[in-house]
Amino acid sequence: MKVLFAAGDPKPERWTVPIQQLLPEAEVFNWDPNGEPVNADYAIVWQPPEALFERERQLKAVFNLGAGIDGLLKVANLPRDIPVVRLEDAGMSVQMTEHVIHQLVDISRNMQVYRDQQAAGTWKIHRPIRRKDWPVGVMGLGHIGKRVARSIASLDYQVSGWARSEHHLDGVTCYAGTDRFDDFLAQTRVLINTLPLTDATRGILNADTLAKLRPDAVVINVGRGEHLVEDDLLQAIDNGQVAHASLDVFQSEPLPADHPFWQRAEITITPHVSARTQRDDTLEQITGKIRAHSQGQPITGVVDMSQGY
Amino acid sequence: MKVLFAAGDPKPERWTVPIQQLLPEAEVFNWDPNGEPVNADYAIVWQPPEALFERERQLKAVFNLGAGIDGLLKVANLPRDIPVVRLEDAGMSVQMTEHVIHQLVDISRNMQVYRDQQAAGTWKIHRPIRRKDWPVGVMGLGHIGKRVARSIASLDYQVSGWARSEHHLDGVTCYAGTDRFDDFLAQTRVLINTLPLTDATRGILNADTLAKLRPDAVVINVGRGEHLVEDDLLQAIDNGQVAHASLDVFQSEPLPADHPFWQRAEITITPHVSARTQRDDTLEQITGKIRAHSQGQPITGVVDMSQGY
Repeated sequence: MKVLFAAGDPKPERWTVPIQQLLPEAEVFNWDPNGEPVNADYAIVWQPPEALFERERQLKAVFNLGAGIDGLLKVANLPRDIPVVRLEDAGMSVQMTEHVIHQLVDISRNMQVYRDQQAAGTWKIHRPIRRKDWPVGVMGLGHIGKRVARSIASLDYQVSGWARSEHHLDGVTCYAGTDRFDDFLAQTRVLINTLPLTDATRGILNADTLAKLRPDAVVINVGRGEHLVEDDLLQAIDNGQVAHASLDVFQSEPLPADHPFWQRAEITITPHVSARTQRDDTLEQITGKIRAHSQGQPITGVVDMSQGY
Repeated sequence: MKVLFAAGDPKPERWTVPIQQLLPEAEVFNWDPNGEPVNADYAIVWQPPEALFERERQLKAVFNLGAGIDGLLKVANLPRDIPVVRLEDAGMSVQMTEHVIHQLVDISRNMQVYRDQQAAGTWKIHRPIRRKDWPVGVMGLGHIGKRVARSIASLDYQVSGWARSEHHLDGVTCYAGTDRFDDFLAQTRVLINTLPLTDATRGILNADTLAKLRPDAVVINVGRGEHLVEDDLLQAIDNGQVAHASLDVFQSEPLPADHPFWQRAEITITPHVSARTQRDDTLEQITGKIRAHSQGQPITGVVDMSQGY
C-alpha cells in the first residue's frame, strides 16, 4: 500500500514520519511537485494542487486534513468516483467549544470592562447578567455544533439550534430547514455559526439575517469567513442592531492590515485559532481509516458530494 | 409570622416588597437600628449587627443572604441554638462555573496575546495547547466545586478534586482529607479554590501549598480573600513557581488602591463578581424555606456549626 502526503508543510517529515510509524505496512511518500507518479493508493491532503490528481490515477480515497472540505472542493479535478473523507473531530470540537464559551462569557459578562478597570486601578462591581436576556442560537448541528450547543445549555443559557436536517438535543430547541430559519433567528440574541461552507450557506450571515436577531445581537463566527458578508456586519454594528462580534475567520486570511475590522472596539478578532488540528489525533484517525479501508471495512466521515460536507 | 430583613441595603424595599409578595401570610419588617423589638420569628440577614440578636430574642431561624457564612459567624452573639441557614446555589454555581471556565481558557489559551495582537493589527497563529499539560485541581467539592469540576472535565481537561470528606464524581479524581492534600497538589497545575472559609482553610493558599503544584502553576481564587496569603503569592510569582493568578476575592475589599496586585501582568483582578446573588432566586429559596420551617417541615442548607459551613 502506498500513501502520498501533500499538505504544503515546509517540514513534511513532521507528518510522514509518524504516518510511517502508524502504518508500518505502507510506503509513505511526500508530494514532490517535480516528481514522477508513485501510484499512490491513498492521499492525505490539505489544499492539494491539481497536478496531484492528474499524476496519481490509482487513488482509492482522499483524506482531508481538516473538517471543512470547502478548500478541497475548489480543486477542479478532485476525483468524484472515490471516497473523499473529512477529518472528524480529532480534538477540534472541544477546542471550538471552549473558545466559543470563552467568547460568549467575555461578551455577556463584559469582561473587557473589568480588564479596563484593572488597568485603571478601579474597583467597581457591575450588575450580574440575567441568563434569559442572552438567548443563544447555534447554526449547524454537526459534531461541533452539537457539542457547542450542549455545553452552553449546561451553563443554563437558553439555547436554540438550526440545521438543514432534523436534530434532537436535550435542553436545546432545534429548528430544521430554511422554512424555520426566521423563527430560529427571532429566538436568538447570540448567533454562533458552526456551519460547513457550501453554496447554500455562503453569505448566510448577511444584513437580512442580522436584522432578524434580537436587539443588541452578538455574532460569533467560528465557521468560515465566507459565511459572513463583512460590509453587512459593519453596517449592522453602525445601525446598533449588532452590539458585538467575535470573529475567528475572515473572507481573506490573514486579515489585511487595512481592514476596517481591526479598529473596531465592537469586534473581537482571533486569527483562525478557535480549533487547530492536533497532529497526533489527526494522524491516528486517518491512518486508522486507511487501514480499515484497505481491509475492505467501512469508514465514517465520507463527504456527501451532493451536500458538500 | 414576623420576618425581619437586615442587610444594610440602602434600598431595602427592593427586598422587603418581594418578600411580602412571596409570603403574604407574614408581617415583614426592615431592620431599624433605633427601633423597638418586633419579636421576629425569622431573620433574613447579611452581615447583621450584634444589636439585632440582642433585641430579637424569639428568632426560630436565621437565613444568610449568601452561601459563605464566614461573615455571619463573626457576629459574636449569633444564636447557636436555632438553625442558621445558608443560601444554596440560587444561581451562583452556574455564574461561578462560567467565570472559572472563562478565566481558565483566558489563561491556558493565552487570550491576552490575541487581544494585544488585535490592538497592534497583528495576525499571528500560536500553537494550540495540549490538554494534558493543563491538569486542573478543584479545592472544595460542595455544590459549587462539584459543578466547576464537572464542567471543566466536560472540556476534556484532567480534573482532580479535593475536599475534607470523600466524594465520587464521574471523570474527576477525588482526594479526601489533609493526608491526601499533597498528592492532590502534585497532580495540579491549575488550582481552583471554591472552599468555604473556616479556621481549617484560612491561609490554605500559602507558600508551602503553591510550591507543591506543578511548574508554571495557575491559581484561580473564587473562594475568599482570606484563603490566600497574598505575600506568598507575590513571592511564588517572583520565584517563577506561579505563572498566573486570577483573583476575584481579596484580604481587603475593595482592593486598596496601593495594593501591589493591581500592577502585576501575572494577576487578573475581578472585583468579587464571579457570582453575585440573584435576588429573585434568592428570595424564592429563602421564603420557601421560611414557609416550610413554619409548617414544621425539614429544610436544607442548615449550617453545621462544628464545621463552620
